[in-house]
Amino acid sequence: MLDQTRLPHESVWISCQSAEDVAQAIERMQVRGAPAIAIAAAYGVVLAAQEAAAAGDAGFDAQVMAAIRRLSATRPTAVNLFQAMQRLQAVLTEAESRAPADIAARLAAEADAMAAEDIGVNRRIGDLGARLFSSPARVLTHCNTGSLATVAYGTALGVIRSLHRDGKLLHVWVDETRPFLQGARLTAYELLADGIPFTLITDNMAAHFMRQGQVDAVVVGADRIAANGDTANKIGTYGLAVLCRHHGIPFYVAAPSTTFDLTIPSGDHIPIEERSEREVTHVLGHPLAPPGVRAAHPAFDVTPADLITAIITEQGVVERPDAARVAAVLRSSEGAREGGGRG
Amino acid sequence: MLDQTRLPHESVWISCQSAEDVAQAIERMQVRGAPAIAIAAAYGVVLAAQEAAAAGDAGFDAQVMAAIRRLSATRPTAVNLFQAMQRLQAVLTEAESRAPADIAARLAAEADAMAAEDIGVNRRIGDLGARLFSSPARVLTHCNTGSLATVAYGTALGVIRSLHRDGKLLHVWVDETRPFLQGARLTAYELLADGIPFTLITDNMAAHFMRQGQVDAVVVGADRIAANGDTANKIGTYGLAVLCRHHGIPFYVAAPSTTFDLTIPSGDHIPIEERSEREVTHVLGHPLAPPGVRAAHPAFDVTPADLITAIITEQGVVERPDAARVAAVLRSSEGAREGGGRG
Repeated sequence: MLDQTRLPHESVWISCQSAEDVAQAIERMQVRGAPAIAIAAAYGVVLAAQEAAAAGDAGFDAQVMAAIRRLSATRPTAVNLFQAMQRLQAVLTEAESRAPADIAARLAAEADAMAAEDIGVNRRIGDLGARLFSSPARVLTHCNTGSLATVAYGTALGVIRSLHRDGKLLHVWVDETRPFLQGARLTAYELLADGIPFTLITDNMAAHFMRQGQVDAVVVGADRIAANGDTANKIGTYGLAVLCRHHGIPFYVAAPSTTFDLTIPSGDHIPIEERSEREVTHVLGHPLAPPGVRAAHPAFDVTPADLITAIITEQGVVERPDAARVAAVLRSSEGAREGGGRG
Repeated sequence: MLDQTRLPHESVWISCQSAEDVAQAIERMQVRGAPAIAIAAAYGVVLAAQEAAAAGDAGFDAQVMAAIRRLSATRPTAVNLFQAMQRLQAVLTEAESRAPADIAARLAAEADAMAAEDIGVNRRIGDLGARLFSSPARVLTHCNTGSLATVAYGTALGVIRSLHRDGKLLHVWVDETRPFLQGARLTAYELLADGIPFTLITDNMAAHFMRQGQVDAVVVGADRIAANGDTANKIGTYGLAVLCRHHGIPFYVAAPSTTFDLTIPSGDHIPIEERSEREVTHVLGHPLAPPGVRAAHPAFDVTPADLITAIITEQGVVERPDAARVAAVLRSSEGAREGGGRG
C-alpha cells in the first residue's frame, strides 16, 4: 500500500505480510478513508487465512476469526469496515466443512469482489451526484474521498470527477482538513494529477468564500450514516453543514450504501474516535504548540440529517433524508436488484 | 521586540534601529495584533524623528512624514495603525515651528502615552466584558488577542483574564487559528504562563463542541469595526459567528475604541489583506501540499453586526450593535470624557 502519512512528499510503498501488519497500517492511518479501510482489512483477513492454511494446523477458523476481531478493533467510527468483516465471516461460516486452502481462496475471491464492486459503486455515485447539478458549479470539499480513500474514483471526489468529465465543474475549493491535512496532502495530490482546477484553503476560510458567493455546493463523504440520515464524517463536516444552511448552499453527502448503519436510529449512537493529541499539537512531526499543552482530537463529528440536502448512494439519491426516505431508497434498490439488476 | 514568528519554540528578541526595520517586522508578522502593530509603528516614527533630528538637516518633517507613510503601508486591514499614525502626524503639525529634537521628544512622549493608554484600555475592556457573564463559563477564542497582540493584558484575552481573576472562567477553548497558528503558538503560550485552564483545538472542531453544549460564549478581538458594527477580524471569525447564531451562543467582540473606523458605513468598505499562499501551503516553513498547488489567503474576514451579541470597548458595551448604538456608546463616552474622565 502507498503510505498516506508520507504523501505528497514521498511515495513510500509499505508491504503488509500479515493481518497484524494491515491492522497497524490502519491504526497509523497509512491507509485511511472508510471504503479503503474496509478493503485493506478484507485483504488482511485473506493474509491470515492464507497463513493459517499454509501452517496446516487445526485452528484455521479460530485464526481467521482472530484476524477479523483484530482488524475490527482498529478504528471505531467508519462502518464499512464492520460490513466487510461481516461479509468475510459469512463466507467462513458457509464454507465451514471445506479445506482451509479452499476457504482461503473463497475469502480472497470475496475480497476481490468487494474491491471490484467499490469501483463500480463510486462511478455510479459520481454520476448520480453530477446529475444533481444543472449548471457549472464551484464545489467545496473536505478531507479526502478520492482514489486514496476508496479503491478508485472516490465518493465525494467521484462526484467532482464526474462533474469535471461532464464540463459542469468550474472550480474546487479544497479544505486543508486539519489536523491530518487529508485535503492539503491527498485531495490536492489527486486533483493536481487529474488536472482539475482547485484552490487550497484553510478550514476556517470556507465561511468567508461562502459569504462572497463563491461556493455553489459542498460535497463530502461519510464514515457512518444512521438509519435517519445523520452522518458521521471527518471533523469539520458538521460546521460546513451549518454554514451551508446559513448561506442557502446545498450540502451533499456522497457514500456507498455500505456506509449506512441501519441498526442505529440516529447519529447519537455513532461512536466518535478520539485520536492522539499529538496529531493536533504537531504537524508532520513538527511541534506547533508549546510543550505541555493539552489538545482535543475528536476525529469525526455528526451532521444531523436536517442539514443535509441529499445523500448520494449508488442505489439512488436520498433527498432531504429522514428514516422513511433512507429506507425507501435502500428498499427500492433492493427490489430493483431482486428484479434483475442495479440499473 | 520578541519575534512572534519564532514563538513558542524560541524566544528571539529583534532590535529595530529604524522605521524601516519596524515596517519590515510588521510585514513579516514578527509583531502582530492590531493594537501592538499601532504601538510598534508609533515607535518606528519616533526612531525616524530621532534619526532626522540627529542628522540635523533641513528635511526633518519630510523624513518623519516618509516614515509615517512607509509604516502606514505595511498592513491594510487593522485601523489602529492608521489612528496611531494620525495622532503622531497631529503632534508633528502642532509642533511645526519647534526644533527637531524637541519635536522628536514630543513624538516619543505621544508614543509612550499611547502605550500606557493601551494597558488601561485593555483592563477596562476585560472588566466590562467579564461583567457580561453572570455565571462561570467555558469560553472559546480565536487567534491571539493577549499581551502579545497589545501592550499588555489583551482585548478578548483581557476579558478571559478578568473572568479568570473573578472566578468566572471554567475553561478556554483555543482555536489553533490556521494559517499563522496564533492560537496554538501564542494564545497557548500566554494561557500556559498564566495558569489558565484551556484545551487547544483545530479551527474545524469548534462546531462539534458547540453542538455538544461545551461552549458558553465566544470572545474575539477585532482589526477594524465599521460605523454600523460590522467587524473585520482574523480569518475564521465570521464562521464562528455563524456557528454561534445556529447554536444560540453569545458572540462577543472585544476591542479598543480606536478599532472603530467611523468613516466607513459598513464592513463592505474594509480592505481585506491577501497574504502569501506560502503561509497556507506551508506550516512553520515545512511544506504540506504538493508543489504547484495554488492557495487562497485572505488574512481577515468580516462579521456582519447582526451576528454580534455585543462589542466590548473601554468606553462601554455596544449591545446588538448597529450604527445608532455604536454612535451612542462612543458619543456618550465622549461626553463623559469632556465632563471629567472616562470613568
